[in-house]
Amino acid sequence: MRFETENSYEVQDKIRQFRAAILPIGAVEAHGPHLPLGTDNLLAERLAGRLAERTTSFVLPTLPYGQVWSLRNFPGSINVSNEALIRMLTDIGESLYQQGFRIFAIVNGHLGNAVALKEAARVLYERVPELKVYYFFYPGTKEVTNEVRETASAHGTYMHADEIETSYMLYLAGEYVDMSKAINGAPVMTAEADCTPTPWEEMTSSAVLGDATLATREKGEKIIERSLDVMADMLNRAKERLAVEEEADSGSKKQQ
Amino acid sequence: MRFETENSYEVQDKIRQFRAAILPIGAVEAHGPHLPLGTDNLLAERLAGRLAERTTSFVLPTLPYGQVWSLRNFPGSINVSNEALIRMLTDIGESLYQQGFRIFAIVNGHLGNAVALKEAARVLYERVPELKVYYFFYPGTKEVTNEVRETASAHGTYMHADEIETSYMLYLAGEYVDMSKAINGAPVMTAEADCTPTPWEEMTSSAVLGDATLATREKGEKIIERSLDVMADMLNRAKERLAVEEEADSGSKKQQ
Amino acid sequence: MRFETENSYEVQDKIRQFRAAILPIGAVEAHGPHLPLGTDNLLAERLAGRLAERTTSFVLPTLPYGQVWSLRNFPGSINVSNEALIRMLTDIGESLYQQGFRIFAIVNGHLGNAVALKEAARVLYERVPELKVYYFFYPGTKEVTNEVRETASAHGTYMHADEIETSYMLYLAGEYVDMSKAINGAPVMTAEADCTPTPWEEMTSSAVLGDATLATREKGEKIIERSLDVMADMLNRAKERLAVEEEADSGSKKQQ
Amino acid sequence: MRFETENSYEVQDKIRQFRAAILPIGAVEAHGPHLPLGTDNLLAERLAGRLAERTTSFVLPTLPYGQVWSLRNFPGSINVSNEALIRMLTDIGESLYQQGFRIFAIVNGHLGNAVALKEAARVLYERVPELKVYYFFYPGTKEVTNEVRETASAHGTYMHADEIETSYMLYLAGEYVDMSKAINGAPVMTAEADCTPTPWEEMTSSAVLGDATLATREKGEKIIERSLDVMADMLNRAKERLAVEEEADSGSKKQQ
Amino acid sequence: MRFETENSYEVQDKIRQFRAAILPIGAVEAHGPHLPLGTDNLLAERLAGRLAERTTSFVLPTLPYGQVWSLRNFPGSINVSNEALIRMLTDIGESLYQQGFRIFAIVNGHLGNAVALKEAARVLYERVPELKVYYFFYPGTKEVTNEVRETASAHGTYMHADEIETSYMLYLAGEYVDMSKAINGAPVMTAEADCTPTPWEEMTSSAVLGDATLATREKGEKIIERSLDVMADMLNRAKERLAVEEEADSGSKKQQ
Amino acid sequence: MRFETENSYEVQDKIRQFRAAILPIGAVEAHGPHLPLGTDNLLAERLAGRLAERTTSFVLPTLPYGQVWSLRNFPGSINVSNEALIRMLTDIGESLYQQGFRIFAIVNGHLGNAVALKEAARVLYERVPELKVYYFFYPGTKEVTNEVRETASAHGTYMHADEIETSYMLYLAGEYVDMSKAINGAPVMTAEADCTPTPWEEMTSSAVLGDATLATREKGEKIIERSLDVMADMLNRAKERLAVEEEADSGSKKQQ
Repeated sequence: MRFETENSYEVQDKIRQFRAAILPIGAVEAHGPHLPLGTDNLLAERLAGRLAERTTSFVLPTLPYGQVWSLRNFPGSINVSNEALIRMLTDIGESLYQQGFRIFAIVNGHLGNAVALKEAARVLYERVPELKVYYFFYPGTKEVTNEVRETASAHGTYMHADEIETSYMLYLAGEYVDMSKAINGAPVMTAEADCTPTPWEEMTSSAVLGDATLATREKGEKIIERSLDVMADMLNRAKERLAVEEEADSGSKKQQ
Repeated sequence: MRFETENSYEVQDKIRQFRAAILPIGAVEAHGPHLPLGTDNLLAERLAGRLAERTTSFVLPTLPYGQVWSLRNFPGSINVSNEALIRMLTDIGESLYQQGFRIFAIVNGHLGNAVALKEAARVLYERVPELKVYYFFYPGTKEVTNEVRETASAHGTYMHADEIETSYMLYLAGEYVDMSKAINGAPVMTAEADCTPTPWEEMTSSAVLGDATLATREKGEKIIERSLDVMADMLNRAKERLAVEEEADSGSKKQQ
Repeated sequence: MRFETENSYEVQDKIRQFRAAILPIGAVEAHGPHLPLGTDNLLAERLAGRLAERTTSFVLPTLPYGQVWSLRNFPGSINVSNEALIRMLTDIGESLYQQGFRIFAIVNGHLGNAVALKEAARVLYERVPELKVYYFFYPGTKEVTNEVRETASAHGTYMHADEIETSYMLYLAGEYVDMSKAINGAPVMTAEADCTPTPWEEMTSSAVLGDATLATREKGEKIIERSLDVMADMLNRAKERLAVEEEADSGSKKQQ
Repeated sequence: MRFETENSYEVQDKIRQFRAAILPIGAVEAHGPHLPLGTDNLLAERLAGRLAERTTSFVLPTLPYGQVWSLRNFPGSINVSNEALIRMLTDIGESLYQQGFRIFAIVNGHLGNAVALKEAARVLYERVPELKVYYFFYPGTKEVTNEVRETASAHGTYMHADEIETSYMLYLAGEYVDMSKAINGAPVMTAEADCTPTPWEEMTSSAVLGDATLATREKGEKIIERSLDVMADMLNRAKERLAVEEEADSGSKKQQ
Repeated sequence: MRFETENSYEVQDKIRQFRAAILPIGAVEAHGPHLPLGTDNLLAERLAGRLAERTTSFVLPTLPYGQVWSLRNFPGSINVSNEALIRMLTDIGESLYQQGFRIFAIVNGHLGNAVALKEAARVLYERVPELKVYYFFYPGTKEVTNEVRETASAHGTYMHADEIETSYMLYLAGEYVDMSKAINGAPVMTAEADCTPTPWEEMTSSAVLGDATLATREKGEKIIERSLDVMADMLNRAKERLAVEEEADSGSKKQQ
Repeated sequence: MRFETENSYEVQDKIRQFRAAILPIGAVEAHGPHLPLGTDNLLAERLAGRLAERTTSFVLPTLPYGQVWSLRNFPGSINVSNEALIRMLTDIGESLYQQGFRIFAIVNGHLGNAVALKEAARVLYERVPELKVYYFFYPGTKEVTNEVRETASAHGTYMHADEIETSYMLYLAGEYVDMSKAINGAPVMTAEADCTPTPWEEMTSSAVLGDATLATREKGEKIIERSLDVMADMLNRAKERLAVEEEADSGSKKQQ
C-alpha cells in the first residue's frame, strides 16, 4: 500500500484500481516530556496506514511539517505557514489527479493544519472538481471520546499531549511514549485565548493540555478504531459512487 | 540524532550543543522498473543520517515532495512547484533559527529541487543572515564519478536511475533495488532539450537515463563516501567557525 | 462613538482617549425567507454599537462583504475570498495603529469570516505587536445558548438563520425580520460535510439551518447581552492594562 | 433598491429583471474641520441611491475603506492598499456575475480609489467578459464645474474638502456639514507633487484644498445632477443593449 | 553619461559625485503608419539623454516594455502588466540605492506606464526613504502645448501619435518619422471610454488620436525644451538639497 | 529585422511571415576594469541581431536588467529579482503569441538569468503551448571553448569577464573593450561556493574570473560562430516544422 515503494512500471495499473491516495500530515511540535516532537507525524502515518488497508488505497509519504503557530516558541517546534501548506497540498492534489487518482484523503494528525487543509480542499474543488478531497482529523469521535475520558477537556476544540492524544499514541505508536514522564498539565485557559492571538506559553509551560497520566492504550484503541470506521466508511462509499459513475460512463459510451 | 524522536524538555540543550540541523529532501518520481518511486527520498534520508553521525547534528524529518516537472507525466510522479518548495523551506529555516540552530544543511536527493533550494537559501541569507544554509547534491563527486563509471554520462548534468544513481541505492538502500529488472535506458538526448522545455517522455520511455545494469554497491560506496567526506568537512568547519565566533563574543562580553 | 462622523480636527484627542476601535464585519448572504441578505451586517453593526457604548470606543464603518463559500450559490449571496479579507483587515489594522489606536476589536456577524479574522490578527501580531487585536463571534454564549434553545443545534459549530440567529435579529434589528415567513429548515447534515468541501445546497434548499419559528426577542436578548458582557469585560480590562502600562512608561520617563 | 434588505427567496427574480448592481465605494479620510471623516462614503452612498432609482438597479452595501495614501498621516484617515481593493472588487464582481448580474457600476466618492477601480475593471474584463463594469467618479462634470466654481481649482485633478466637494455634501448630505467651521484652505501645491510621492502634509495642514466657505447647496445640485444624468444615461443604454442582445439570443434559440 | 559604458573600477566615484540615475521607460506599441513601434522608447531615451547632460546624471539603459492594455490588440503592440513593471522598477530602485544613488528619475515616454510608476515610487518611498524618486511624463507642458497646438486635443489626458507626439519625434528622433504617411486620425471618443474598460480598437483603427499631419519639429522643440527645463530644475534642486544635507551631516559628525 | 522600427501598418504581414521573435536579455553588472557594465547586454543584442539575420526573425528591444545576485555588491551592478524577470518574460511571451508569433527565442548574455528564463519558459509552455520558447546561453560551445581556451576554466559553470567572455566582446563589440586594462583575475573559488549563498566579493575583488589578457577576437569568433550555427539550426528547424504543420492544417481544412 506504500506508494513510495512502488515502481513506475507497475504503479499505473494499481492507481486505476485503487483510485484513492491517502496523505498523512502532521507537524514537528512540542508534546511535553513524555511524547516525542514527531507525535503528530507518527499518529497521522500509522492511522493512514490502517485506513489504507481497510480501503485498498495508497499511502503517500508523510508531509511532516505543519502550522504550529501557538506552540512555535516551545523547544523543538518547527512552524510553517498556512500559505506554504496550501500551496504544497494543492500542488500534490493536482498532480495526483493527473496521475489518475480520483480520491485524495488527507489524514491530519495536527489540529493547527485544519485551516490550511480546508482551504486547499476548496481550491482543489475549483481546479480539479473530479478529484474528491477529504480532510480527516479524527472524525466521528466526539461521542466515544466523551465516554472514555476521565477528565474534562481543557478546551472545547484543542487536544494536545493530554489524556486523549497520549492514549492515541499508546495505541498506535506506544514504543515512542514514556509514561514514566507523563504529567498532569493543568493549563490556565482563559476566554480571551479564543478571541485574540495567544501563544500557548501564556497558558502552559509544559505544552500538556490535560492529564496525560490517565492515558491508556485501551482508550486510544476505542477512539481510533471508531474514527477508522468512520473514515473507511466515507472512503469506501466514495469509491463505490465512483465505480457506479464510471460504469455509467462506460455504458453510455458503448451505446454511442 | 533524529530530531523527531526528541522531546521538548530535553531538546533545547541539544540544539545549543549541536547547532546544526540536516533536512533530507527528495521527491516521488518514476525511476524505471528496478528502483522505487521514493528513491530520491531514501537516498536523501540515509545520506543525511550518515552525515548527522559524522557531524553530531540533528536530522529533521524528510520533506518527501519535490519539483519533478520533467518526469511529471510518468506513472507515479508527484510534482510540486518551486514556489511551494521555496515557501516551505524558508519557513522551516526561519523556524530553525528561532529554535537556536545556526547551521541548516539541506541534503538533496533530487536534482530538480536545486533551483528552489538555491533560491530559498538566498532568501534566508537576507532574512536570517546568522543562519548558515547549505544545499548539497552529492558535492565533490565529479572526479570520483568519472573514475568509477563504465559508461559515459547521458547528459552533462542529469543523472537518473542510471549506473550511478542505482549504485547509490545499492550502497545506501539496497533492499529497495531489484537488479533483475535493471535495464540500459539509452535515452535520446538532443541539444534542444537544454534550450526549450522538454518533458522527458520525448527522450525516454523508461526514465532510465543510462545503463543501470552496470550499477554496483562498490561504485556507490566510493562516490557516496567521498561526498560524505566533503559535506562533513564543510559542516564541521562551519561549526568550528561558529564556536570561535561565540567564544569571541562571550570574551568581548566579559571584557565589557 | 461613530468614527465616520468625527472630523479630523477633533478626532486625534479622542483617539488618544478611547484607544479602541471596533470594526463590524458581516456578509451579504442568503438567510432564508424571513431574514434579509444583510443580516450578518446588521447584527455586527448593532452589536458593535452597543459594545462601543459600554467601553467608550469608536465604531468604524461596517465591512459588509464576507467569505460565504458554503452559501455562495444561493440567491443573493456575495462571496469574497479569505485573501481579500486578510489583506483588507491587516491594512486597516496597520492604519489604525498609525493613527494611535492600541486596541482593534473586530465584531464578526458571520462565522465564515472566522478563518480570515484569526489569520489577519496573527499577521498584525507580528507587524504591529503593540496593537491588541480581538476577533469576536458571540463569545461566551455557549452555555446560555444551550439554556434558551428549544431545539437541538443542527450542527456543532454552524448557526444560520435558525432559532438562535433569528432571535438575535429580533433583539437587535427586529424591524428587518418577517416572522410570518419563518420556517423550520430541517437540514440534512451528513458527517461528510465536515470532511470534504460541501456547498450547502447539498443539505438545504432554504439556507435555514434549524427551526426559525421558535425565535423570540427574549432569547436573543439573553444571549446577546451575555456576549456583550463578555466582550465589554475583555475590552475594558485591555484598556486598564494599557492605562497601567502607559502610566508606568510615563513614570519611567519622568525618572529619566 | 437596497440589495441588503432583500431576502434570498425573492431576490433572484429581481436580479434577472434589474441586471445592474451599483457599489458605492468611498474612504475614511480627513476632510478638514467642517466635513466628517466619512464624507466620501456618504457621497458615494447617496449618489448611488439616486442612480439606482433612475435606473432601476440594486444598490449594494457601501465599501467604506479606500486608498488614502496622500492623507494617511492626517488624523482620522484609514488607508488600505490598492491590492486589497483590487482583490475585494474582483471577488465581488465575479460573485455578482455568478448571481446573474450583467452590469456592475462602481460609484466612487474618493479619487484615490481610481487606480484600483480601473485595474479591477480590467481584471474582470478578462475573467468575466460578459459583465459590463463601470467606474464612476463624477463623470461629465468638467464643464458644469467650471461654470459654477468661483475660485480656480487648486489642482488639475484633485478636489478635496473644497468649494466643490463641500457643495456636493451640502446637496447630498447637508446634515453632516458644519459650514460655520468651513475655511479657505489655500494649499501650497508645487509642480513636484505630481512627479514624486508627496504626502499632503507637505502642502496643507488642513486637508482643505481650496475655499470651502464658498460652497453652496445649489452649486452641488448643479454638478451632481449633471453627473447623475450622465451616469444614468450610460447605465440605461447598457441595459437596453443587454435587452436587445438577450432578445436576439432568445430569438436565435427559438429558430434552432 | 551612459551608465552602461562605465566600468566597475571607475563608476563608484562618479556615482558619489552624480548621485542621480535617470531611467528611460517606454513601450513597444502601435503608433500609426508614420511612427515606429518603438516611438515611446526613442522619446524616453533621448529625453533622458538630454536631461542627464543638463543635470550631470547617469542615464541607465532603457526599459523598453510597457503597459499597453488599450492598444494591445493593434499590430505590433507588446503588453506587460503593471505587476511586472512595479516589481522590476522597485528592484532597480533598491539596487540603485545600494549602489549609492540618492535620486532616481524615471523618464516615461508612455502614459500607460503612469500607474505602475507612481505605485513603484510609493513602494520605494517606504522601503528606501532616502532615495528620492521622480516619475516624469512631460511635466510642465500643459500651457505651452495649448499654445502651439493647432487642433484641439482628442482627449483630456491621452496623446498618441498625434500632432503633439509626432512633433516630439520630429524634434528628438526625426530620422524615424515618415511624414509622408502621416494622417489625421479623427478618433471617435465617447464619454464611456473613461468609465469602462475600452480597448482602443473601439475608437480608432489607425491608433492616431489626432491630426499627425500638423506636426512640426518646431512645435516639438518648444514643448520638449520646456519640459526639459522643468525636469532639470527639479533634479538640480534635489541635488542641491542633497548637498546641503550631506554637508550638514558631515558637519555634525565632525563636531562629534 | 528590428521590431522596434517597424510600423503597425506593415508589421502584421511580416509577423505572419517570420513567425519568430528574438529577445536579447543581459544585465548591468561589474565586468572588471576592461569591460563595460553593459557587457552582457551588448553581447546578447549583437548575437541576437546576427541570429535574426540567419533566420529571418525579428529582434525585439533588449531587456537590459538581469539577476546579478552574486555580483550585486560590486560597483555598478543593478540587480533585479527572478520574480520580476519571470513575470516580465511571461507577459512578453503571451503578448507575442497574441500578435501571431509562434517562436520566442531568448538570447541570454548573463548566466544569472538562466533560472528565470527556464521557469518563464515552463510557465509559457502551460499557458500558450503553441508558442515554442527557446532560452539560449551560448549553446553548443562546450567543445570549441575547450579547444580555444589557453587557461583552465575557473569554475565548471561560470564564465565572467575572463579569457572567454572578453573574447566574445572583442568579436562582437570590440569598440567597448580596453585590453590595456585587462587583468588576470585569479579568483579563489572554494567548493563551498556551490553549496551555500556566496557573494562573489568573497572570492574576487576584480570580478574577473580568469585571465582576460589572453582574450582574442579570433577565439571569440570561433565560439560565437559555432553557437550561432547551433541556434540558427534550431530556429530554422522549428520554422520548418511550423510550416509543415500549417500546411497540414490548411490541407485538412480544404478537405473539409
